[in-house]
Amino acid sequence: MIYKKAILPKGFKASALACGLKKSGKLDLALFYSAASAKAACLFTANIIQAAPLKVTKKYLKNNKAFRAVIANSGNANCFTGKAGLKDAQGMSALTAKELGIKKEAVLVASTGIIGRRLKLDKIKKAMPALVKSLSPNGIAKAKRAIMTTDTFAKEITVKFNSAGKTITICGIAKGAGMIAPNLATLLCFIFTDADITQGALKQALKIAADDSFNCITVDGCMSTNDMAMLLANGAAGNSLIDTDRNFGAFSKALNTVCLELAKMVVKDAEGATKFIQIRVENAKTGKEAKQVALSIANSSLFKTAMFASSKNILGRTVAAAGASGVDIKEEDLKISSSPLKKKEVNINVSLKRGKSSATVYTSDLSYEYVKINAEYN
Amino acid sequence: MIYKKAILPKGFKASALACGLKKSGKLDLALFYSAASAKAACLFTANIIQAAPLKVTKKYLKNNKAFRAVIANSGNANCFTGKAGLKDAQGMSALTAKELGIKKEAVLVASTGIIGRRLKLDKIKKAMPALVKSLSPNGIAKAKRAIMTTDTFAKEITVKFNSAGKTITICGIAKGAGMIAPNLATLLCFIFTDADITQGALKQALKIAADDSFNCITVDGCMSTNDMAMLLANGAAGNSLIDTDRNFGAFSKALNTVCLELAKMVVKDAEGATKFIQIRVENAKTGKEAKQVALSIANSSLFKTAMFASSKNILGRTVAAAGASGVDIKEEDLKISSSPLKKKEVNINVSLKRGKSSATVYTSDLSYEYVKINAEYN
Repeated sequence: MIYKKAILPKGFKASALACGLKKSGKLDLALFYSAASAKAACLFTANIIQAAPLKVTKKYLKNNKAFRAVIANSGNANCFTGKAGLKDAQGMSALTAKELGIKKEAVLVASTGIIGRRLKLDKIKKAMPALVKSLSPNGIAKAKRAIMTTDTFAKEITVKFNSAGKTITICGIAKGAGMIAPNLATLLCFIFTDADITQGALKQALKIAADDSFNCITVDGCMSTNDMAMLLANGAAGNSLIDTDRNFGAFSKALNTVCLELAKMVVKDAEGATKFIQIRVENAKTGKEAKQVALSIANSSLFKTAMFASSKNILGRTVAAAGASGVDIKEEDLKISSSPLKKKEVNINVSLKRGKSSATVYTSDLSYEYVKINAEYN
Repeated sequence: MIYKKAILPKGFKASALACGLKKSGKLDLALFYSAASAKAACLFTANIIQAAPLKVTKKYLKNNKAFRAVIANSGNANCFTGKAGLKDAQGMSALTAKELGIKKEAVLVASTGIIGRRLKLDKIKKAMPALVKSLSPNGIAKAKRAIMTTDTFAKEITVKFNSAGKTITICGIAKGAGMIAPNLATLLCFIFTDADITQGALKQALKIAADDSFNCITVDGCMSTNDMAMLLANGAAGNSLIDTDRNFGAFSKALNTVCLELAKMVVKDAEGATKFIQIRVENAKTGKEAKQVALSIANSSLFKTAMFASSKNILGRTVAAAGASGVDIKEEDLKISSSPLKKKEVNINVSLKRGKSSATVYTSDLSYEYVKINAEYN
């Protein structure tokens, strides 16, 4: 069963509040908590410059296998903040751990927002008692909004499925909007499941799901410094253990659905987007090559502005962008077709006559609003 | 001496008229002619999909060393037009040659405009007698406008210099505006000189000049299917022969000036641009690496919109774009500074602490106007 809202699995709680990191006074601090120890799998941005919370989370993931909480803020990316920034990220974790009465290595950290400014840790410190006190299974309704930046709606989905008589729940929330390009997702995504699953299976399932979802979306081709997709599993469903060779299929399939739906929501809420565009490249030599051509088209500013205008020019712009992809396409083999351009959802089909592989990429158009939002964001 | 207008060198003539390829009725057909045979050097777009006129020009350049004319149209790119398009491009050349009474392989061809529509050769045929009849040294004043698409001003420059008692003239015109990204220039550029120069020296000088000019500019990161830079030399100055090891320096330097000034004008007239941005990356391991980082910044939509808004956010956007360049930058070594953002010309300086090489790239901001122009262009 698919639910278009976030329903936390057994044993998880969440809370959120406005601690003052956002000038607007909106929600900017979220806490996710598991009563039992949870396994974690994470994917991180491929940007060589990584924000402090990513470095801290990576360190904890390396030295520790059991996690209890995630603390996340919006309004400040805590990136390009040097050693002080690292200390602040560790501080976020330590403050949370202290209030929860657990060790700090069990608290993962995430941030999103403006790059290059010091995080105001005192605001987080002040907010912590109330944040922990308000933890509840329904807290996800506020937490999903506390991770948003320029998003206009919260991205949330829950999938429940049966595994040998037990119900397993996978619930995901995400924030996106701008700076969306593979690899990886370049967004913040938190997924919670009560499945009992091995570390290896958890990691593999997330990798599979991300490759066909977060790694297939692009809004502006810009790769963020802060983004991560995190999957926590606390085993509270009491199912018979999932491993890569046992009960894996149903879990993997459900997780694929969660990630793909979240990824599509991110594109639908792309900054200033008026259209949801699906670009399918077929008859490529390899899947990688198909994706390369699809992304070259999806990232072309000229393609995206022509889409915004529903212009017939879209054929020429698609040809030029495909030709610039670096793949050795022959003009006479290149076939391009599209569904009606004036609709809100547009499918572009590209055929290369080079092989039998294909890939699908999701993107948006480029509108006046994109420029407005990104010019004024501060 | 540098002149900010096009002054054709000895022995060259030009003409232009509106033959009806542009719906607006503006100038859309240009002819350039040399009384004496000229040597030619050309650089072409790196897009794998190349328009028909590029294929024809390449063929002529391969089989022939003496040229007399260039025929160029705007309003139609004659690209993605298959075999019919190739025939049309050859037809343009043949019609011109016939009217001039020379062989068609001596007439190079260029087109710019909408991709994917058949060229109306009958309009060019009908215009040819008047086009040839009106050839004159002053015809360049109209020809420079006939190659324009969304350009708001003509790009033109002339450099005259002394070579052992003889005056050599190099005159260049260009069209640009959108779809500007290396490599190469992704524009149309025609340069004429009366220098007496060997084929090898001509080619080498153009390559050197383009590398530091047309290959260092980017507007939207989109690589065109049609663009080329063409340099014709007819020897009419009567100078002592220039070769790669003889009298080369002064010619090369003058050509560098012509190309760099044209390239900067293209960026200044970038679609919707409100700012001219110079990005200098220093202390890189190699020049290539420096350029890679500079282009990653210059092509970032988030960087460009922040520039449009003169936003303080520019630091974070520059960090994120540099980090996404693929170069192994260390956060603690990355130093970024800029001149005042609210000025019309902005310099961004990036230092990597990896070596001693540097590169400069020129770009523009991303404004509402860019979206408007490219959404409505048809």
